[in-house]
Parts: sequence; structure tokens; C-alpha cells
Amino acid sequence: MHDTMSRLRTELIAAGQFFHSRGWVPATSSNFSARLSEAEILITSSGQHKGRLDDNGFLRADLQGVSLEEGKRPSAETGLHTLMYRRDPAVGCVLHTHSVNATVLSMRLDEVVFDGYEVQKAFPGVGTHASRLLIPVFPNSQDIPALAEVVGAYLDENPQTVGYLIRGHGLYTWGATVADTQRHIEALEFLFECVYRQMLLDR
Amino acid sequence: MHDTMSRLRTELIAAGQFFHSRGWVPATSSNFSARLSEAEILITSSGQHKGRLDDNGFLRADLQGVSLEEGKRPSAETGLHTLMYRRDPAVGCVLHTHSVNATVLSMRLDEVVFDGYEVQKAFPGVGTHASRLLIPVFPNSQDIPALAEVVGAYLDENPQTVGYLIRGHGLYTWGATVADTQRHIEALEFLFECVYRQMLLDR
Amino acid sequence: MHDTMSRLRTELIAAGQFFHSRGWVPATSSNFSARLSEAEILITSSGQHKGRLDDNGFLRADLQGVSLEEGKRPSAETGLHTLMYRRDPAVGCVLHTHSVNATVLSMRLDEVVFDGYEVQKAFPGVGTHASRLLIPVFPNSQDIPALAEVVGAYLDENPQTVGYLIRGHGLYTWGATVADTQRHIEALEFLFECVYRQMLLDR
Amino acid sequence: MHDTMSRLRTELIAAGQFFHSRGWVPATSSNFSARLSEAEILITSSGQHKGRLDDNGFLRADLQGVSLEEGKRPSAETGLHTLMYRRDPAVGCVLHTHSVNATVLSMRLDEVVFDGYEVQKAFPGVGTHASRLLIPVFPNSQDIPALAEVVGAYLDENPQTVGYLIRGHGLYTWGATVADTQRHIEALEFLFECVYRQMLLDR
Repeated sequence: MHDTMSRLRTELIAAGQFFHSRGWVPATSSNFSARLSEAEILITSSGQHKGRLDDNGFLRADLQGVSLEEGKRPSAETGLHTLMYRRDPAVGCVLHTHSVNATVLSMRLDEVVFDGYEVQKAFPGVGTHASRLLIPVFPNSQDIPALAEVVGAYLDENPQTVGYLIRGHGLYTWGATVADTQRHIEALEFLFECVYRQMLLDR
Repeated sequence: MHDTMSRLRTELIAAGQFFHSRGWVPATSSNFSARLSEAEILITSSGQHKGRLDDNGFLRADLQGVSLEEGKRPSAETGLHTLMYRRDPAVGCVLHTHSVNATVLSMRLDEVVFDGYEVQKAFPGVGTHASRLLIPVFPNSQDIPALAEVVGAYLDENPQTVGYLIRGHGLYTWGATVADTQRHIEALEFLFECVYRQMLLDR
Repeated sequence: MHDTMSRLRTELIAAGQFFHSRGWVPATSSNFSARLSEAEILITSSGQHKGRLDDNGFLRADLQGVSLEEGKRPSAETGLHTLMYRRDPAVGCVLHTHSVNATVLSMRLDEVVFDGYEVQKAFPGVGTHASRLLIPVFPNSQDIPALAEVVGAYLDENPQTVGYLIRGHGLYTWGATVADTQRHIEALEFLFECVYRQMLLDR
Repeated sequence: MHDTMSRLRTELIAAGQFFHSRGWVPATSSNFSARLSEAEILITSSGQHKGRLDDNGFLRADLQGVSLEEGKRPSAETGLHTLMYRRDPAVGCVLHTHSVNATVLSMRLDEVVFDGYEVQKAFPGVGTHASRLLIPVFPNSQDIPALAEVVGAYLDENPQTVGYLIRGHGLYTWGATVADTQRHIEALEFLFECVYRQMLLDR
């Protein structure tokens, strides 16, 4: 497991540097996690700048979000990560980022719909642009367990969901590996910028 | 031919890194190819991130798009590359990129027209800004042979074409060398951003 | 104190490089300072490019803004830095940056209001997005003592203020450390871009 | 003179890399020059990518634009550079760049006016934001001598001019040194983006 941990840390640090170069993890926003085993995850600890992470910026937690390392506090939003690992053993990574477009769209729409974009094929199970991808927007809350419950109920009803927005608070997405999940972020941010630019032309 | 292959791989890898720094090859979108000989091309294999290519991210194919390397699958869109190599022995490189502007403009226009821009002189045979450059937009399709037929018919009628868009799916352009084709991408993306910014002011 | 000075110079140089990469310190605009002791600060000297600072780009000054180094002239705007160090012994850093958004918003609004953004939690004492953060805009002036008086009077009335804009002239913010203050810049610039994008959609 | 030439080449190469990182020198657009002596300049040769210059990308020319190096062709636009060196012995550098904003604004306005921006102080002789800076726009032409005549006549009437735009063709500015001129570019591009963003809000 030490090798796995070391590899996942390296992958999450690199992901954070890439997101930072695009402006998607401002200040100390955002959280990254990856699965270590059936019962444990690695997650960024509270208050870190996600573009300048080092090996000390992580902690191990169980799938209830309890820290397995003394003196290290998991982020408040850990519950939104563990929700995904509990729901599906195939989930190996959860990334929460915080771009301008994710924020602005989430404050103006109740869902973001992608339709006719070739890039929709970046998501598992999507084989054609002639499909409809819907990203739901949930109201923001500082009560993370309550928010996790709302998200969980939605995912029960809509198991094909690839990611969601929290109003004024950014994006959550997940995948089998860090690379897969980073690809989802890149595809979703591309699509958010397309939607924003279309909205400007549509007014 | 080994030297040629090695040089072309290096050039295409560098092109991908540059396009990635600009956000023009999100997720695993886009495809790059270059001519190895009269009858063979080098092309990116399926599912690679085009901003992080290495020497293993390519395969050799013939001008019908058949892989010449066992176990390596060419991208679905190889047929749009080989079309160009078959049409013109002077074509040494075909690049397909996937920017936000190429996507948004292709979803709103049937053709993109450049008129009065000095940068139009970046294209072969254009000696003055006082010219008109037209980039056609073709409907997207997952049926690549059918799409290649539509493109080929258009190019028969309009042999001076320097590139085309597929709706919601990005840009194809070509040239004698990787450097020439990369310059076309850079010029076209510059012009797309000009056109988008003009459209915003025109509403 | 030599160690402190060396460390603070390094931190301010790195901050300048980051701001430059984002376009927030154009030409020779902007000024950075950090506290050396109860009675002394380190501040960028006049006419430097803030994205390419080296160890010679700084001077020591007292809290009245008088240079403590012969032959080195503090920036004209030093008085807006020393104001903050005199007001609060906990202030360890003052950063003045000059982005396009800070400039444009300051020329169109009398105050910039952030409401409902999770990123507001980047500021000390803000525990929820359900809060209201107000960034005042002061008229620009080449008479820095007069401007400092206006700012000081406002801060007396509004001690919870986290930063302010000068019309057509950029942003001032402060914090306990260089890292804290850089985080405030990053959060405020994120929020300015959100507000600008919302204003475009609102017209 | 060899030392001067070597230093100026290095400075112009670095300037080009910076402009390229911002997208201000797309494809093979733009030209850079610097004064070698009373009667000679160094100028980028035709067809170079200005973001990837090396020592071979330059040639020496006299102040009439005649190449002093056999087999090296000066750019067609050399006449707009030599005009400035002939007009004023204090001019040590002329930079022509080609940004999206310079292009779009030049196609919609007959002059670009800056008023109330602190950054106007980046230009020689400007001591306050409460000033008015006017950037004229000249019609584009492939007849460079004719264009140079129009520019020269305007500068005779308006000697305080700090730069000009050619319609659809980008920006020319100049200064005593490469660093000064690069600062002018950075300030003007900052101001162009401010003006463009204001125009969007004003519609």
C-alpha cells in the first residue's frame, strides 16, 4: 500500500499543478482524493493550496471520513468524497475543483445541459455527440452531511450522472483513476466555457 | 525512414504540448498525423491525451487508414487524415484540434469568413489582407467514411480551402510540414477568437 | 533580521512571478511590501517590473515611508502601505496589484459586492458563503497622503474590510503573511472575474 | 558592436517568448528591431515565428531598410521600423505585435482613447491618470512606403504619439530600449483589454 499511496500522491499533486495553471483551484478552495483500498482513501487536508501541494498535504481517512492520522484534520467537505467511494467500489478518485465558469453557471442555472458536443464522448458510456449530458446544480450548504444526503438521493435516481455543481461552490466529478477523473474535469471545464460563450451570444 | 519517424514524432509531441498550453486539445480529443513516405503515415493512436504524448502514442498506417502495427488501433477519425494524404502528395501533415472557439463558432455558423485580417497571409497563396478566406462547417457524424466523402466532395469543388470545421467537433487543417500546419492552427485560432469577439460586439 | 529579510524578499519575488503569469502586474504597476519588524518594512522600489524582481528591487523604510537606504527611492504609493502597518501590528504584508478586472470594475462601480460565493471563506472571519463581502472603490488621486486619509477614515468606520480598489488603479489587500495576502489576491481576482462575467450576462 | 548585437538579440528573443506566451505574435506575424548604431539596426528576418526566434532570425539593415547581410531578406514591413529610427535618434527599439484585441479594436474604431487609467503613466511624459492618451488607427496597406508616409505625416502633427494601430494588422510602438518598448506593449495590451471589456459592458 505504501507504493500505491506514493503514486497517488504524485498523481494528485500533478493534477493540482495543472488545475492551478488554468485557474481552477483559487486560494485554498477545492479538494482531491483517491482510493487506497476497499476501506481507505487519501485526501487533501484542510487549508492547503491545491496548486502547491506536497507529500504533507494529504491524510488517510476511512470511508466515513474519519482521519486515520493523528493531528491531521480532513477537509470539511470530506463527506462528499466518501459518499462516492461508499456508493461504488469502482470509484478510485474524486476531484472537486472551483473554476470561474463552474461558479458563474451554477449561480444562474438549475442544471447545465450539454447537447451535440463531440467532447461528451470523454465520459464513460457516451459513444456519440448526439446525446444529452446533464450536470445538476445543488444549493450550497455549510451542512455537509445534509448536502451529501441530497446528492446521494439524486444519484440514486440518476445513476448515469458524471458530475455535479454546488451553487457558487464549484464542481465534483469522479472516475476509476486519477487520470480518468482529471480527463472528466478537463472535458467539463471545456464544455462549461462553451456554454458560457454561447450564453453570451444568446442574450 | 527511422530518422524521419523519430523527427516527426518529436515535432508532433511538441505541437501537442503547445496546443495543450492554449487549451486546444481538451481531454482525449484531437488527432495528429504526418507523412512518412508516399504510402505511409504516422498518426496518434486512440485515447491518448494530445498534450502529454510520448513515443508510444503513435502508430504507422497506410493511406487507407489500416494500422501497420499489430495491437495498435488507429483513431476512429483516421479516415479524415488519410483523405488528405491521398488527395495531395504535397500534404505532409494533418492536424485536428478542438478549441472552445472552433466548437462554439461551428455550432452557430455554416461557414466562418475572414475578411480584412493581415493574418490571412499566413496561408499559402494569400498575399494580401484584402482577400476572403472561408472555413466551411460540416455536420458532425460518427460515420467517418460518410463524413470523409462529404469533405472530399467539398474540396473537389473548393480546392483552395485551407481548413474546415466539423460542427461541435473542432478543426482540421493541413500543410507541407508539421511547422506549416501548426502555423495554420495558430493563425486560424487567432482568427476564430477575433471573430468571436466581433460577434459579441455585434449583438 | 537578515534571515527574515531574505525570506520575505524570496516570497515577494515569487508572488510577483505568479501575479505576472496571470497578467495582474502589467508594465511597472503594482507594489509589494512586508513587515520586517515593529518599525520597519521591506517594499519594492520605484520603477521595477513586479514580475521580474530580484534582490535589488527592494528597500527598507520606516512606518512613515521614509527610506532607510541611501539612494533608493520608495514608490510614490508607499504611504498606502505604511498606513496599514501603522493601523494594525498584526499586518505582515500589503500587496497592491493591477488587473484588468480590478481596473474595469473600479471604473464602473462604487463598490463591488460578493454574495453567495463559497470563496468568500478565504477571508479571515468569514465562515459561510451566506455572507456579504463589500470592496469599496475610492477615486484615484496622485496625492497619496490625501488618498491615505480617505482610506484610513473608511477603515475606521469599516474595520472588517479585506481590501479596496482605487478607480482605474487596481487593488490593495493585506494579511498576516505574504502567503495569506497572496491568497486574498487570488480569491479577490477569482471573484472579480465572476462578477465581470455575471455583469456581461446581466446586460 | 558585437557585444551590443549579441545583447540586443538576446533581449529581442526573450521579448518574443514573452509575447508568444500571451498570444500576441500568432503564426509568423509581428516584427522586432533595435538600434545597433547611428546608421544600423538589427531586425527580425522575414517568415520567422517571433515566439521561437534564435540568433539566426535577425539581420542588420541600414536606416533605409536595405539588408547589410547577403542572402537575408528583411521583412516587408521594415520601412515602418526605419521610419522611427530616422525620425528620432533617441529611438532604440521598435516592436510590432499582433494581438486579438489590437486587431479587433482596430477594425471597429478610428482611434483608441485611454482616459483615467493609472497605467497611462507607463508612457514617457505622462505623470497622471487624469490625461488622455490617443492611439490612432491607420488603414492597412500592402504598400509599405505609402503606409510609412501616412504614419510619418501623422507623427509630424502629433509628436507625442506613443504607438499606433494598423487596421486588422496590429500595433507599433517604440522606446529608448528593448525593456522600455516591451513595457509599452504590456501597458497598451492591458489598456486594449480594458477598453474591449468596457465596450462589451457598454453595448
